[in-house]
Amino acid sequence: MSKEKQFVTEITPQQEDFSRWYIDVIKKADLMDYSPVRGCIVFKPDGFEIWEHMQEELNRRFKETGHRNAYFPMFIPESFFQKEKEHVEGFNPELPWVTEAGGEKLEERLAIRPTSETMIGHMYSKWIQSYRDLPVLINQWANVVRWEKRTLPFLRTSEFLWQEGHTAHETEEEARQETMQMLEIYREFVENFLAIPVIMGAKTPSERFAGAVDTFSIEAMMKDGRAVQAGTSHYLGTKFAVAFDIKYLSRENNLEYVHTTSWGVSTRLIGSMIMVHGDDRGLVLPPKVAPTQVIMIPIGPPKTREQVIGRTDELYKELKQAGIRVRVDDRADVSPGWKFNEYEMRGVPLRLELGPRDMENGVAVLVSRISGEKRVVQQANLVAEVEKMLQEIHDDMFARAKQFREENFSFVDTLDELKASMEEKRGFYLAGWCGSAACEQQVKEETGATSRNIPFEPQVKKDTCLCCGEKAEHTVVFARAY
Amino acid sequence: MSKEKQFVTEITPQQEDFSRWYIDVIKKADLMDYSPVRGCIVFKPDGFEIWEHMQEELNRRFKETGHRNAYFPMFIPESFFQKEKEHVEGFNPELPWVTEAGGEKLEERLAIRPTSETMIGHMYSKWIQSYRDLPVLINQWANVVRWEKRTLPFLRTSEFLWQEGHTAHETEEEARQETMQMLEIYREFVENFLAIPVIMGAKTPSERFAGAVDTFSIEAMMKDGRAVQAGTSHYLGTKFAVAFDIKYLSRENNLEYVHTTSWGVSTRLIGSMIMVHGDDRGLVLPPKVAPTQVIMIPIGPPKTREQVIGRTDELYKELKQAGIRVRVDDRADVSPGWKFNEYEMRGVPLRLELGPRDMENGVAVLVSRISGEKRVVQQANLVAEVEKMLQEIHDDMFARAKQFREENFSFVDTLDELKASMEEKRGFYLAGWCGSAACEQQVKEETGATSRNIPFEPQVKKDTCLCCGEKAEHTVVFARAY
Repeated sequence: MSKEKQFVTEITPQQEDFSRWYIDVIKKADLMDYSPVRGCIVFKPDGFEIWEHMQEELNRRFKETGHRNAYFPMFIPESFFQKEKEHVEGFNPELPWVTEAGGEKLEERLAIRPTSETMIGHMYSKWIQSYRDLPVLINQWANVVRWEKRTLPFLRTSEFLWQEGHTAHETEEEARQETMQMLEIYREFVENFLAIPVIMGAKTPSERFAGAVDTFSIEAMMKDGRAVQAGTSHYLGTKFAVAFDIKYLSRENNLEYVHTTSWGVSTRLIGSMIMVHGDDRGLVLPPKVAPTQVIMIPIGPPKTREQVIGRTDELYKELKQAGIRVRVDDRADVSPGWKFNEYEMRGVPLRLELGPRDMENGVAVLVSRISGEKRVVQQANLVAEVEKMLQEIHDDMFARAKQFREENFSFVDTLDELKASMEEKRGFYLAGWCGSAACEQQVKEETGATSRNIPFEPQVKKDTCLCCGEKAEHTVVFARAY
Repeated sequence: MSKEKQFVTEITPQQEDFSRWYIDVIKKADLMDYSPVRGCIVFKPDGFEIWEHMQEELNRRFKETGHRNAYFPMFIPESFFQKEKEHVEGFNPELPWVTEAGGEKLEERLAIRPTSETMIGHMYSKWIQSYRDLPVLINQWANVVRWEKRTLPFLRTSEFLWQEGHTAHETEEEARQETMQMLEIYREFVENFLAIPVIMGAKTPSERFAGAVDTFSIEAMMKDGRAVQAGTSHYLGTKFAVAFDIKYLSRENNLEYVHTTSWGVSTRLIGSMIMVHGDDRGLVLPPKVAPTQVIMIPIGPPKTREQVIGRTDELYKELKQAGIRVRVDDRADVSPGWKFNEYEMRGVPLRLELGPRDMENGVAVLVSRISGEKRVVQQANLVAEVEKMLQEIHDDMFARAKQFREENFSFVDTLDELKASMEEKRGFYLAGWCGSAACEQQVKEETGATSRNIPFEPQVKKDTCLCCGEKAEHTVVFARAY
């Protein structure tokens, strides 16, 4: 058995057990480790750097649209949660409580934030007096905690990292525009940066954020056909404004409640990205987010080794200079084949091979992680060739993910049809829905699928509810979800 | 009373009450707000952006020296603290405890990290097996909590933001090199980016980090003569390695304990920067960290207003294009004089005035926040002139801060001399010290001054202990400290 063969078989094939494949891959690619605290993981450097690249990109988009970052305390007094009824019902079961500090029992318990609408609402009520103070456009990068019963690295952990935007506006119209703008920013980011196609739509009432008037989401399909809610944007109406008394003097000199929004994405994007793109050889990282975009591997016999490494280093400097995240692996005690497998497993999008004959010919060989395509390119034109191929890899990844989603996207008319189809294969199912929570609940109980969202642009419109057969109010995507 | 006059007098003069001056300035400049949780503040956008610029710069320096970011859980099991005796004694009194989560009482209480040596030590013991795994060079940006009795915004808050580097090495020599390298990075950053001169040195044993073999610090002098420890770097020896069983198989095939370091700076740098540079008109922000580096104010009568604003916008684009953080204030309902005061109070390093006559002459007027110097420059050369003046402002700020420190830096021989001097004026006092904790304690009790550090390069060497008169082991900087 060759070393290459041994290497690959350490990862459970996706078809055999997708969950085990996922854990194998994230552990082996060194993205995370379990911690001694239940449901909390350690983000190792390769995992965390993915998050750093996401942060940079999102920050750029947030700032371009006028938002600024701030930071609010993570401790939230218990009384704050009581102020918005739906909010407390939604989050209370998951809160961790600080009851002692500095050697004393606290008079009031402090929750650790599961989200910050309450703390931020309290502050906004102090900051906002007049329409001149509006809009308030603030974002926060923070750790939050939701004490989950079942956890899965990146996708559902007790402590996780996220950003939460919180804005306040004069009118409903303006707040709704903001809600949509941020949803669109998430869509554009997730599609163009992470190469994940998503479905934009509105959540049904039972799936809304606790305290929201409307919740909108982008939903992505994993390679096991399950859905991940990749980002949400909420129009909160005046609910939190009423709860926290956030009023402003309007242009007409009336005291009015502000309209607020909130929106967030989290480190679960890392997990989604892995489940959308990975394969049986390991991770496949989208080029724009990969900690290493190009791995350079000098090859050939010992007698030309020094020369090849010398040239490799020159080319390395050129690529680095151009802002490409590149690394060289010139270890002498590891075979090229082993290295090829290693970096394929780690999901490095592009491999550059350079051997003595390539040197003579002034070329290098580029190999795509996703398609395996080999391309012989001129060294003189290397930066442009690498940039071009990285973009093609991104496009290829997006196209494959989209095709997979389309292959696993079906239309159904009845609950029986949904049940039968889901037993055959998981995926997204578009169906009519009358709008009643009871029908939604029945679908969930009988199939395990939840309503993901009501797509803004459904491929078809369904006329009758899959469950009760009455007139359909909406056409909904149903799927099992993480 | 003119509007300008009213404006200025809202800030308490430094000489009258430095603490009130500080609170007035940070509130009025909109850097922070108090939160409803004891000792926790909100970092408002202008305050937080200062931190973001610090993060960018430090990240660059950390990454250039081979460090990578990661993220560890904030919850630390109680048993972890018991493992390193000095560590638990040092931090136990300040810990907040989570005792309930998800509706249940926890079997083991969880502390919220005051620092992460214990959690990271636990993980490193899993990750490090062989000398091939070393060095481990990891940094974390995180929120930490120390339940402080007396708090002061930015300088001492219950929850604060910081970075903590944690490294593991084969040898003491390598670990000590790392400790010194990071201290030097802090010095260079604080001096060249924040324009704060610092004194590098070793902490005395009583002032060391809980669990460190050696602690080194950079110490800065505030404008009231008190000291702030602006950054620390610790050589932890094998103490945490022994406590958490972090062993590696050496090149000689022996099982050895690793040598670890840790080092950190926090959001207290924001407070220090304000107390070093601010004056009675408000904040003075170092150009490299200022959210707004240049404020552009079009001036002149209504009839030329449109024209002047048009030209201002063109120049604005040029500056922005060059990467300068610039803003325009073209509000018509606020007088230029009011604006001048407003942005001086907010500490914007450079003001650009443009009036109709300047337009005719193709010039603009630049005004330094720190010196008040006015400079008429050619518009054709604006970017270079602005960049030059920003650098000069930085240099000027550093020189002033250094001169202030020198004027408030004295040498004393006896405790009586120190007492008398400190009553006259606060400042830094260099004195001999025998090395006994008892003498150090007596100095503290009788003067309120603590040993700041043992400078690497003291201006003079003292032969006798200021307290007991015995032979001095070290020459130490004493000062009251925040």
